[in-house]
Amino acid sequence: MKNRMVKLARRPKGMVRREDFTFEDGPVPEPGPGQFRVRIDYVSLDPAMRGWMNEGRSYVAPIGLGEVMRGYAAGIVETSNHPAFKPGDAVQGTFGVQHYALSNGERVVKVDTSQAPLERWIGGLGMPGWTAYFGLLEVGQPKAGETVVVSAASGAVGSVVGQIARIKGCRAVGIAGGPEKCRYVTEELGFDACVDYKAGRLAADLKAACPKGIDVYFENVGGEILDTVLLQMNVFGRIPLCGLISAYNATEMPAGPKNLRAVLTQRLKMQGLIVFDWANRVPEAVAQLGLWHKEGKLKIREDVREGGIDAFPDVLNLLYTGGNFGKLVLKV
Amino acid sequence: MKNRMVKLARRPKGMVRREDFTFEDGPVPEPGPGQFRVRIDYVSLDPAMRGWMNEGRSYVAPIGLGEVMRGYAAGIVETSNHPAFKPGDAVQGTFGVQHYALSNGERVVKVDTSQAPLERWIGGLGMPGWTAYFGLLEVGQPKAGETVVVSAASGAVGSVVGQIARIKGCRAVGIAGGPEKCRYVTEELGFDACVDYKAGRLAADLKAACPKGIDVYFENVGGEILDTVLLQMNVFGRIPLCGLISAYNATEMPAGPKNLRAVLTQRLKMQGLIVFDWANRVPEAVAQLGLWHKEGKLKIREDVREGGIDAFPDVLNLLYTGGNFGKLVLKV
Repeated sequence: MKNRMVKLARRPKGMVRREDFTFEDGPVPEPGPGQFRVRIDYVSLDPAMRGWMNEGRSYVAPIGLGEVMRGYAAGIVETSNHPAFKPGDAVQGTFGVQHYALSNGERVVKVDTSQAPLERWIGGLGMPGWTAYFGLLEVGQPKAGETVVVSAASGAVGSVVGQIARIKGCRAVGIAGGPEKCRYVTEELGFDACVDYKAGRLAADLKAACPKGIDVYFENVGGEILDTVLLQMNVFGRIPLCGLISAYNATEMPAGPKNLRAVLTQRLKMQGLIVFDWANRVPEAVAQLGLWHKEGKLKIREDVREGGIDAFPDVLNLLYTGGNFGKLVLKV
Repeated sequence: MKNRMVKLARRPKGMVRREDFTFEDGPVPEPGPGQFRVRIDYVSLDPAMRGWMNEGRSYVAPIGLGEVMRGYAAGIVETSNHPAFKPGDAVQGTFGVQHYALSNGERVVKVDTSQAPLERWIGGLGMPGWTAYFGLLEVGQPKAGETVVVSAASGAVGSVVGQIARIKGCRAVGIAGGPEKCRYVTEELGFDACVDYKAGRLAADLKAACPKGIDVYFENVGGEILDTVLLQMNVFGRIPLCGLISAYNATEMPAGPKNLRAVLTQRLKMQGLIVFDWANRVPEAVAQLGLWHKEGKLKIREDVREGGIDAFPDVLNLLYTGGNFGKLVLKV
């Protein structure tokens, strides 16, 4: 029994490559006092991971060279010296891209696999779901009857954002890549409309989908999509800024939104958000999302990839090419 | 007795030229029922004027071709059929770039010339002052001990922003062009520091002036200055977006801030503001700014230009080249 680990070997330039990592076997770690060991079954692949590999100021420290790649993951407690966690407990936390992890329980959430499968607890019912929940409701402040647009609408966060918008009585409009994803967003998830940005008529299609303009734009993508949306925002609109995935692999900083002036003239509020900032309210999000899921109001789809953690670099890159369909998860 | 008027003849490209306007004489207008006539003594030159000349969506309708150039102005009521305005009253309002205007009193503010000279009521005690007051306090929400940075710090809005920041117990840091303006900002206006962006070391000088980082950035300028400041903003910082003067004469949309990602990672709030949105609270701003001014806590400087309204295009352009020093006003 060994612990296989993915470690950051060098700072990637552009998209990650296998050579940016080492794949190592080490001893299975033994928990010390107050610790427990988790056997990791699923690793969450999140767009933010690319940013964690870079040097420089961000909302968390960069991953050090030679350190295990940081990653959200779900698994089963195997052995425990912690009073609140027992062998057999299903848990979710920042366990890293490896087979086994130790934890002191901080920011670890116990999950109920009778309610939803384990992998869903690092997807729509886990951190991406919480991000959608707090980002839309706290930063976006949608009011019934308003129009909410979300980019990367078939993804882990976007799919939940649009469904919550619908639950709150808003018109939900997605932006996604390709007709298959758009069909999923409207027919399966129940958004009012979805615009295919790959069709090359984004401004016109968005206008048709948002006849009363846009009140809330939940941004996951940045780049030209942000620039296009800015010109269709209503006065006093809100832009929760959750991700800028179009720029995460840029080797030179891409230009920012040239239509920034719309923020001024329309008195928009653009606000960055990181889900950590609501850490003390996670139980509320878990309960509410779980309830909506149980009631059939919140549909969630995972894109589970085989290949184990050795497939990490290639699978991660799917996020930046639009190659995944639903929450991307690596089965360990 | 004639009414001389500056009318918009065509939509300017880039900086305005004399040929973009006509200069016409017409009859002095006679007030109808409920109206009064103002003899305009001072016209305010504001960066926003350039935007009003463009077609396209903004916070106010574009000035129509052949219409009198929109402009804030101050003057004396000459003859009145309005119960609240009497001949001899000093007033401030959107009277246009002309010698005489009619008004029904809407959004016209009576001013007290015993407290400050007439031209100051379209400057630091007028709309630019109100913009600073509401923009900093309502959008910026500065707390004592925080660091507030403002661009165009020697200008009509910026100079008031920094002084209010000081009154509220903040560290006030200006950004201005050239050593003379910077000296004025620190020595006359009492800012804690001022950075000369023309010196070519903006990032380093700003860092030295803001050792604890930046909590509020009151933005009047945009462009590279915004990009530089973004990288020094503290977590949960606020950016009241009041102006983007660096782009107002652009013939092609300049690129936006490439460091937009800092809005996400630092959870910044960038929010556009237009002073109209606090129209119902103008009396509060007038009273508070007037009091601070009387107490000597709020210093205000006008840059009054002669030449009458025929000089309008050339004097306006001073705003975009940094050629003015203090609130730019045209004496009629």
